[in-house]
Amino acid sequence: MNQNDECDEEEAVVLGLDGGTTSTICVCMPLLPNLPDPLPVLGRAIAGCSNHNSVGETLARNTLEQVMMEALLESGRKQSAVKAVCLGVSGANHPKDQERILNWLRDIFPSNVKLYVQNDAVAALASGSMGKLHGCVLISGTGSIAYGFSKDGKEAHAAGGGPILGDWGSGYGIAAQAFTAVVRAHDGRGPQTMLTDSILKYLSLSSSDELIGWTYADPSWARIADLVPQVVSCAVAGDEVANKILNDAVAELAVTVKAVVQRLGLCGEDGNGQFPIVLVGGVLVANKNWDIGQKVVDCLVKTYPGAFPVRPKVEPAVGAALLACNFLIKEKRRE
Amino acid sequence: MNQNDECDEEEAVVLGLDGGTTSTICVCMPLLPNLPDPLPVLGRAIAGCSNHNSVGETLARNTLEQVMMEALLESGRKQSAVKAVCLGVSGANHPKDQERILNWLRDIFPSNVKLYVQNDAVAALASGSMGKLHGCVLISGTGSIAYGFSKDGKEAHAAGGGPILGDWGSGYGIAAQAFTAVVRAHDGRGPQTMLTDSILKYLSLSSSDELIGWTYADPSWARIADLVPQVVSCAVAGDEVANKILNDAVAELAVTVKAVVQRLGLCGEDGNGQFPIVLVGGVLVANKNWDIGQKVVDCLVKTYPGAFPVRPKVEPAVGAALLACNFLIKEKRRE
Repeated sequence: MNQNDECDEEEAVVLGLDGGTTSTICVCMPLLPNLPDPLPVLGRAIAGCSNHNSVGETLARNTLEQVMMEALLESGRKQSAVKAVCLGVSGANHPKDQERILNWLRDIFPSNVKLYVQNDAVAALASGSMGKLHGCVLISGTGSIAYGFSKDGKEAHAAGGGPILGDWGSGYGIAAQAFTAVVRAHDGRGPQTMLTDSILKYLSLSSSDELIGWTYADPSWARIADLVPQVVSCAVAGDEVANKILNDAVAELAVTVKAVVQRLGLCGEDGNGQFPIVLVGGVLVANKNWDIGQKVVDCLVKTYPGAFPVRPKVEPAVGAALLACNFLIKEKRRE
Repeated sequence: MNQNDECDEEEAVVLGLDGGTTSTICVCMPLLPNLPDPLPVLGRAIAGCSNHNSVGETLARNTLEQVMMEALLESGRKQSAVKAVCLGVSGANHPKDQERILNWLRDIFPSNVKLYVQNDAVAALASGSMGKLHGCVLISGTGSIAYGFSKDGKEAHAAGGGPILGDWGSGYGIAAQAFTAVVRAHDGRGPQTMLTDSILKYLSLSSSDELIGWTYADPSWARIADLVPQVVSCAVAGDEVANKILNDAVAELAVTVKAVVQRLGLCGEDGNGQFPIVLVGGVLVANKNWDIGQKVVDCLVKTYPGAFPVRPKVEPAVGAALLACNFLIKEKRRE
């Protein structure tokens, strides 16, 4: 008899993981059909990047194993108590990528443990919908993506292609437009803007000429995206160029959500169907004085009066854990 | 007595170099106050990249020395016949960069040889103006830049900051917009376009989903810019998305030239002053059916009736050699 089958149902747990580009977070939660509020997080651990494209396969696997064991240790449960694991991982769009990561997890857990690998946007959606896969999540952090599910399980996404492929509503997109505006003001192609002083001061550069060297010294997208708060400050102070950049980003993000809503028919045949729009990422939540997330929602409800914003109260790793619970319960019902 | 001073004036030569991002070209020409037509190129040699940012300082120096010695060998002149060297080099914007390269040349030639290092755009301008630094050159190849000189020697440039800093009229910019259009058509954010079939076929990809992997597999800008002919073909075939991308590029390039013209006052006080616009680079010259260069000129002459297009008949290395002659003759006159 397998050790796992001896485990008391009350002790059964699930693991939810958020494998982002800079860190990996794992939470351990009890496996319950109805979770109390607040959600009982039994253990939580953080580790470094687990993206195999960034750190290589061996390190990625080790990081995943380590962060799960730490979360379990903190929860005081044995590994045999784990009934399901759900990992939301950035950049895992291809079935091939997901299959590879599933195989790593398969080496760690016995075969009766249910394993799920999802795009990190799906875990983010679940963090706002409490594990229910319905509606659309809009993420705008360094990158941007909209990812949605219809009630009958169809899924669709838009954007998420990175800067070369036009994610202009992302933090990277906003900051790159601001950099461009500074260069254009400097060489006479565009109007003067407060962005020049703000960005040069923030980067400790003495002239716009130095911006080229700074920009290409390090190709990290996140390093560029870090400048978004400068753009917001200038917009709040009334700078027209900064306001245009943010308004363009709002329009772009709204178009991204609309593409998903249309393809899935989330608004119903009459266009008034109710569905959540889960807002995630620094660009959408961080700036109260120029609230990009709220403006995107304002734009969307004009077209879809049944759309309502949800700002998650729990982190994506918890969303992944909720997905693990729900996927497992569904599978059990089918069996 | 220095060996160089023995050299007969009739035998005196100059070297012109075009140090691009993929190759380095050197030509050897006679030092004459008035050059005959066609220009007498005594020797010509090609070598690999001499950009120290790409290949490192030692290799860059060796490449420069080698290509100059080969051109001299072909010309049948001795090194002592060289009176001046002008090198147009991409990315040498900072005086610090120019100083470093000057020092390399200084190690190769005796102190009486005049040495000049210029931005490659200046050599390109000279290739159209036959060595006279007046007017504006517009380059659009992988990147884009406008660089101009007024009659009284003031200089100014616009764009040239690379893709993150908004060189949207460049080959990279055009192709990146086309890629974005394919992704937008695929995920529902944008209209369908012929670009999808054209680009996927050219890249041997079976689906737009695969474009993300292809794009980020190699960060080379030139690899993206290679797709410009596909965009032109689709535009010629009537595709609206492709036509909009090219029209936007035309507008962007015209704004880039205008910024330089305005800052230098090239059009004179009455706005009708005559000045050349030298057109250089694959984007501006390669496509007769949808002539981006001609459309930029059409746009410019509406504002500046005295502007006239020049399509260089000689290569930038010859432009650099002409500059070497002119700089040297000017210095001699001053002395």
